[in-house]
Amino acid sequence: MSDEMIIERDNRVPDDLPPLRDENDNISSSFLEALGAAIESGNQERARALTEDLHESDVGAILEALEPDQRPALIQLLGDAFDFTALTELDEALRVEILEELPSETVAEGVRELDSDDAVYILEDLDKADQDEILAQIPSVERLALKRSLDYPEDSAGRRMQTEFIAVPPFWTVGQTIDYMREAEDLPEEFHEVFVIDPGYHLLGTVSLNRLLRTKRPIKIADLVSEAHHLIRATEDQEEAARTFQRYNLISAAVVDESDRLVGLLTIDDIVDVIQEEADEDIKRLGGVGDEEVSDKVWYIAKSRFPWLFINLITAVMASFVIGLFEHQLQKMVALAVLMPIVASQGGNAGTQTMTVAVRAIAMRELGPHNVLRVIGRELVVGMFNGFVFAAIVGAMAVYRFGIFDLGFVIAAAMVINLIAAALGGILIPLALNRLKIDPAVASSSFVTTITDLVGFFSFLGFAALWFGLT
Amino acid sequence: MSDEMIIERDNRVPDDLPPLRDENDNISSSFLEALGAAIESGNQERARALTEDLHESDVGAILEALEPDQRPALIQLLGDAFDFTALTELDEALRVEILEELPSETVAEGVRELDSDDAVYILEDLDKADQDEILAQIPSVERLALKRSLDYPEDSAGRRMQTEFIAVPPFWTVGQTIDYMREAEDLPEEFHEVFVIDPGYHLLGTVSLNRLLRTKRPIKIADLVSEAHHLIRATEDQEEAARTFQRYNLISAAVVDESDRLVGLLTIDDIVDVIQEEADEDIKRLGGVGDEEVSDKVWYIAKSRFPWLFINLITAVMASFVIGLFEHQLQKMVALAVLMPIVASQGGNAGTQTMTVAVRAIAMRELGPHNVLRVIGRELVVGMFNGFVFAAIVGAMAVYRFGIFDLGFVIAAAMVINLIAAALGGILIPLALNRLKIDPAVASSSFVTTITDLVGFFSFLGFAALWFGLT
Repeated sequence: MSDEMIIERDNRVPDDLPPLRDENDNISSSFLEALGAAIESGNQERARALTEDLHESDVGAILEALEPDQRPALIQLLGDAFDFTALTELDEALRVEILEELPSETVAEGVRELDSDDAVYILEDLDKADQDEILAQIPSVERLALKRSLDYPEDSAGRRMQTEFIAVPPFWTVGQTIDYMREAEDLPEEFHEVFVIDPGYHLLGTVSLNRLLRTKRPIKIADLVSEAHHLIRATEDQEEAARTFQRYNLISAAVVDESDRLVGLLTIDDIVDVIQEEADEDIKRLGGVGDEEVSDKVWYIAKSRFPWLFINLITAVMASFVIGLFEHQLQKMVALAVLMPIVASQGGNAGTQTMTVAVRAIAMRELGPHNVLRVIGRELVVGMFNGFVFAAIVGAMAVYRFGIFDLGFVIAAAMVINLIAAALGGILIPLALNRLKIDPAVASSSFVTTITDLVGFFSFLGFAALWFGLT
Repeated sequence: MSDEMIIERDNRVPDDLPPLRDENDNISSSFLEALGAAIESGNQERARALTEDLHESDVGAILEALEPDQRPALIQLLGDAFDFTALTELDEALRVEILEELPSETVAEGVRELDSDDAVYILEDLDKADQDEILAQIPSVERLALKRSLDYPEDSAGRRMQTEFIAVPPFWTVGQTIDYMREAEDLPEEFHEVFVIDPGYHLLGTVSLNRLLRTKRPIKIADLVSEAHHLIRATEDQEEAARTFQRYNLISAAVVDESDRLVGLLTIDDIVDVIQEEADEDIKRLGGVGDEEVSDKVWYIAKSRFPWLFINLITAVMASFVIGLFEHQLQKMVALAVLMPIVASQGGNAGTQTMTVAVRAIAMRELGPHNVLRVIGRELVVGMFNGFVFAAIVGAMAVYRFGIFDLGFVIAAAMVINLIAAALGGILIPLALNRLKIDPAVASSSFVTTITDLVGFFSFLGFAALWFGLT
């Protein structure tokens, strides 16, 4: 034993092994070349030497960095030295692509070695026929457990749970439990608590490992058990489960079925992925894109972005229609055409600010009856304040640019109106959508910019028409 | 022992205790009324009865839902029945407000009871003078540990780490270790691994609790130890640490100082908060807002949003300047003024789509040398594809609306150009900012919409001027 032990694996450069990662933390090109050559020449020993002892997420990163046809080739070359867990680290599109290239026996064998949650994660993206073909080659006990998880709805806790866990009756002693754990063969690799159940598999409570460790052998489990406050239902949405984990800082939680029987275990590492996915989804929806991934194909991306652009087009055409109402005035005073996008743009930006905060607060459950009126009032005041400040700036600029004093007042008034509209739209639209059970992240952007475009153009051009008597 | 044990605490309605939460999962108004009355009348017993056994995050939610002056009043009324951990569940603004209202002895006493990471989390937001006043009232051993954490930079792993952990020498046996854990008094409440150290406090490796539990007492710790692959440096950014946790699915990790000595422990529950915060930050920056929270005051919000709006104003003025170049043409053909926002708006939207995906991929480290060219190429093709589709739609609409056949070609050509500009800007700007070590989430939006506005207006009005010979 020496300090050597703590040297990170990534930095190894023994013999002729190239470094795994370059200075930017990407898989190094020398590593990819060496591995590519091994795949090309079918050199199994070399391929295994290059990838052995690597963490599954590093293997995942390697697969991503390889050429498409090298990926299944590497997996077949490595044979049973390939840990299928690495596939859970990939984007869905890549994973499906690789799995479809592999013979179903290879997949079935690989999946069998996994914890049930990882196995389900890999199987759930495949179409029904491929799933069945693979499941048919897995022994019945494991197959039934996987099938049960797959029967739960997509994105439910039942899909994410692991069906390997330790459950003991309350009348066992600490010593019995420890002995059982020492002898049992197929225990999960990592666990943090022991479940206590009755003969009908109903959960009575849990005992944490450190509690178990710190208690003398003859003590009964029943004396150590603590209530399982935070049960997760297998049918519950994973987002709901993630919220429970976050709220109560859980590391793991029991999953129960409709009749309150213990069916699985959710752990924080799965939940971290869920939290990341949900945040990702919110960001993408606010930016007007669907659930695309970096590795998706051109056609898929173009198709999935089209509807959002189409909705934006409708908004833009509506704004253009409002402008069209003032064709006559624009012709008489072309300065209006030059200035009008400023009012609309500032409104759109201010509305997006308010909306972003509102959408996020709703997602995090931070907006409730106790503060919603205060927040609406605050946004209104902020909108008015910034409205007046920008009205003054833009008004002065308009006067300077066009030498028409009254034009300053017209654009200033329109700016105040539009920033107030932006504030109200930015907060009320997400709240209304949420009330209607529509995800505010999806639809708020278009609605808010529609409002600020219409109000911006209409108020500016309308005021101008009235003020200057342009008819 | 019975099934009663698993009834959730939240649902309790014994005696005269009102339900904690209403059907929307908010703190119920009847609960707030009852607690408010207890605070008003100084009824300590009643206040304690209402809040006892509640999870800290529920107590945090209650504090948030109370009136501002009731918050410190409740904490003082509860006395030592109040767990300061609840304050870690609040927004920073609220936490600071409450702490400033409380006498420093109360805070010092409350903070002493906490795990070091929670204590630091509460202290770090206070100004130096308040910090010192509180630290002065904490016994020296604890004070030194807290001070050492506070000396690490903001948002570093050292600030988030917990300084309570279990470390044993390699020559101890499993039995000795277990006995030590059974007898030690001030162990952390939750832990998942035991650290193995040399006499100089250098980390030799770790032993997981389940490994310890499943091994016979006479075995030496040295035989069980596994390398601590993933060390976290105390000075490292918390975001960096979070990435290590996510990449390697860690539950906890050792934190070491500059001389590789073990100084603390980071656990996944702290990391979950970091992941959430970072995602939050990305969302807010993309939406053009700073690090504001729902509970922030009007003035703070107005001030923090102003710079983003000001930058947008510059963008809008530049666009307006471009339009001004074509004043003459607009006067001759007012249809141009009516149609021009459509080209700019579609470009802005398409650019935002590409940028959102790019910013997110950069944040998640999914864009590297192996795929960046492919992704740029893909965005270009998607931009061209959607450009042609929308060119056809908008061209047809323009012809229908104004009866000028050539106007359809002009707007169609401008649309294609602008959607290509949007695609390139949307991907190249975030990449360039990242290369310049500027967070792409902060600045990309303004740059991208500047490009799409300028290109949109210039190409449409310019083509029109050329085509129709408007000079």
